[in-house]
Formats: sequence, structure tokens, C-alpha cells
Amino acid sequence: MKIQKIPEASIMRLSVYSRHLAHLDQMGIVTTSSGEIAEGVGVSSAQVRKDLAYFGEFGTRGVGYNVKDLHHHILKILGLNNEWPIILIGAGNLGTALCLYRGFNERGFRIAGVFDNDIKKQGQMVGEITILPMEKLEQVIEEYEVKMGIVAVPSSFAQEIVNLMVKYGIKAIFNFAPRALSVPDDVELRNVDLAVNLEVLTFKLSI
Amino acid sequence: MKIQKIPEASIMRLSVYSRHLAHLDQMGIVTTSSGEIAEGVGVSSAQVRKDLAYFGEFGTRGVGYNVKDLHHHILKILGLNNEWPIILIGAGNLGTALCLYRGFNERGFRIAGVFDNDIKKQGQMVGEITILPMEKLEQVIEEYEVKMGIVAVPSSFAQEIVNLMVKYGIKAIFNFAPRALSVPDDVELRNVDLAVNLEVLTFKLSI
Repeated sequence: MKIQKIPEASIMRLSVYSRHLAHLDQMGIVTTSSGEIAEGVGVSSAQVRKDLAYFGEFGTRGVGYNVKDLHHHILKILGLNNEWPIILIGAGNLGTALCLYRGFNERGFRIAGVFDNDIKKQGQMVGEITILPMEKLEQVIEEYEVKMGIVAVPSSFAQEIVNLMVKYGIKAIFNFAPRALSVPDDVELRNVDLAVNLEVLTFKLSI
Repeated sequence: MKIQKIPEASIMRLSVYSRHLAHLDQMGIVTTSSGEIAEGVGVSSAQVRKDLAYFGEFGTRGVGYNVKDLHHHILKILGLNNEWPIILIGAGNLGTALCLYRGFNERGFRIAGVFDNDIKKQGQMVGEITILPMEKLEQVIEEYEVKMGIVAVPSSFAQEIVNLMVKYGIKAIFNFAPRALSVPDDVELRNVDLAVNLEVLTFKLSI
């Protein structure tokens, strides 16, 4: 398995396939085909086969895929056979929404701590989680062995926050601040800039 | 300019370059280079030149780019020389956060209406915007000539909502529901699944 060569888009599609497989499994369906998965998620069946082929042989020719097995395999590939504790920095509107976002919980992500430097927010609850001061960051990361963090702070604080997270051992960061951030080579950084996504749409509407 | 061949990643980077150029302009800087832009946003200077080359010749060899001109050009390419009214469906936690998200406003997006089918939410305010019932959707889209919409409803309602938006004339949809949605060929659909993004990170942490 040549990990380096697997396109990120394939990883994202695996994640989508796994939801569809969970759905099929819930409906009691035992076997499926690349065509059925493709139709369920809106890609071509060749794409499904290609994405799966990066990780070995799964199906049986003429029979298809066992739903439970394939679902389990994909979750394992994605590292989702374990729960992932995550920390979230910034308890503003976006941070609060992310903290309450059911989609994370459903996929095995657990918010281990929410942090904000605003004294008025500290001690308040977001759902069932208490907003903590930044001074507690190191302790929570250690206690829950957290490797992943979400940054939902204003752009001007983002690099400083990321430096702290890296210092305390965070290895993967999901950043919502619209700012280019730098991290060491052994830390994965993923940026989602919501306005940039809207601008891809305005570009397409404008041509 | 062969629009069809421009990669989406280039469009997204143009959006990022334009923010950096706005920043340079605010600091009173008149000319810049692909190298400076590259450093400012964390890509290679070859990448900057390649992305810009899709849209023609901008700089002067040996002199570089005029900051204001290039900024203006990019905004025009992205369709951001105009304000874009947008509607937002779903006033849950995520919808509320998106509605209050300053990043949209800063880039010329204006929320023309927020809609929710929950009677308890209707009439409540999100920032300065009143949550409206779905029955008002057609009227708001017509009145403000809205072409773009954001979907932040539970997955099970998403396709139904998208169908309504399309029916009333929406041409570009930014979807947060983790569900494959279908739209006609003349409607642009962009999906952002937040958990999928986290799973790209868990994949990388797991290998």
C-alpha cells in the first residue's frame, strides 16, 4: 500500500462510502456492489473501485462486497476503529456550533475540552462541556491523550494558538481561521475557509 | 481563457491571494512579486505564477505586480466586484454560526434571509436578521435577486430543501449536510462535510 500516492479526494470519498455502508448495514443489507455504492453517494462505480483498490482487494468477483466487512475495513483505514478525543479552541459562534455538531460525535470524535481566553466565557457550558481557560490546555491534552485540535479563533490569534497546541503535543489541526498557518513537518494541518468555498461558487456564477 | 481547465484548487488559492493583497494594500505596499505573495500565503512562487497565468498576463517582468491592480483583477475574476446576497436555510447551531460568521461579510456576502421550519425559531433574531418561515423563501429570493444559498439543515431534509431552492431560482448551493445531493446541471453544488475533513486527519495520524 503506497500511502504517499493516495489522493486526498479518495480519502474523503472513503469517508462518504463508509456512511453509505453504515446506512446499508442498518437496513439489513448483507452484500453490495461498487455500482450500488456509486449510486448511493453520487460518483461513478469505476471511481469506487479505484478508491478501494488503493487499499487492497475487498470484494469477490461476481458476488460483490460484504457490507459489514467493507464498512469495518474502511473505518479501520480511516483510523475510526478508535474514538478520537479532540480539543477545540475558540468558543465563539463557530466554535460553539462545532462543539455541538452531531456529525463529529456520530463518527467517534469526542470533544475533550473547549478553550477560550475570554474570562466571561470561561465556566459557561456548551452542551455538556465547560469552557476552560487556555491555562488548562496542556493538562487536558495530557490527561485525555489528545492528538487532534480544532482552531476556531480570530485570524490574528490563530498562529499563536497553533504554536501552543503543537508545543503540548497536538499532531493534527483543523483550522477555520482564514489565515495561512505554519506547523512543523510532523504536524498535519487542514484548513477550511468557509468564504473561500463561497468564492468558488461566485467564480462559477460569474463566468 | 479556457475556463473549463482551471482547477478548483487554483480558484481557492486566488481567493487566498486576494486576502493577502488586501493586507499588503492596507499596509501601503504598492508593488509585490510572486515570491512575496507565495511567502505570505505558504505556497511556491511557481504556483502563484501558474495560478495567475490562467487568467492572462498581470505583472511586468523585473518590476512585479501592482498590488491594487492585481487585487482588483482577482476580485473581478472571483466575481467579487459585486455584493452577493445569500440565503441560509436552517437556523440551528451551525446555521446561526454561519449567519454570524464575519468572514462572509468581509468578502461582500450579505445574508438576505435565514429560514427555518421550526415555529419556535421563526421571528427570533440571529444578529440583525429575523428567522423566517420557509413559506417566505420564494419572496426573499425574488426580492433580493438571490442566486446563492447555504444549506445547514439535518441530512434527512437536505434534498427537499435543495429542490425548493432550485425551484425558486437558486443557482449555487453550499451544502453542510453530510449527504449526497442532486441538482440540475445548471446549478453549482459545493459540499463541505466537516467530519470528512477530520477523517482525512485521522487517516494521516493512523498510517
